[in-house]
Amino acid sequence: MSRTAIAAVNRQFEDAAKQGDLDRLAALYTADAMALPPDGPIVKGRENIKQMWGSVATQMGLKEVRLETMDLEVTGDTAYEVGEATLTHSGGTASMKFVVVWKMVDGQWRLHRDIWNSTGA
Amino acid sequence: MSRTAIAAVNRQFEDAAKQGDLDRLAALYTADAMALPPDGPIVKGRENIKQMWGSVATQMGLKEVRLETMDLEVTGDTAYEVGEATLTHSGGTASMKFVVVWKMVDGQWRLHRDIWNSTGA
Repeated sequence: MSRTAIAAVNRQFEDAAKQGDLDRLAALYTADAMALPPDGPIVKGRENIKQMWGSVATQMGLKEVRLETMDLEVTGDTAYEVGEATLTHSGGTASMKFVVVWKMVDGQWRLHRDIWNSTGA
Repeated sequence: MSRTAIAAVNRQFEDAAKQGDLDRLAALYTADAMALPPDGPIVKGRENIKQMWGSVATQMGLKEVRLETMDLEVTGDTAYEVGEATLTHSGGTASMKFVVVWKMVDGQWRLHRDIWNSTGA
């Protein structure tokens, strides 16, 4: 059940990114989430994460994000995922890999820690 | 207790890196660990992680790694950490941030998932 639920949130993430809906994207994170984008400091909290994604979307001309789960382990109300992401932007595509720590909050799986980097491809 | 034990493994990590002892460094990871270094594919398993650190050490002229824990949450035999790392190398220093998923194996905390990227500083 957790796997299905987490996969569903990843599809919501992709959809929100495609729509450019930063509020929906940010709502998929926990209130005290941390995002660790490459080449910048740690970004803390939903509002700052929303602004970070806004900057990334504008700077890259982000059009689409595709998330592929490579590994997912669930322990109680925490889970951690290793995956690969393909970002389609105005200049082409970028291939990323990521680790997300998921946390169940009020019955919903939310991104609690989110870090990614380039695959170099 | 877990916090103290994990901090101790981080000190072992720093020490092994400083000594250039790749066997000790690799032994701090679980057998089925995954490391996600920037600009490369996912590295799976202790032996491949050992080789990856060997390449990083050679390419960078790595002299020292300092790890600073910013956040650590422990749930049973799993923990996840957000931190910052300072790498001293032949050309100066590099400032990184990281997420490590820790796993308790045979009574020892070991790095199970390890991903990092630059802070841009």
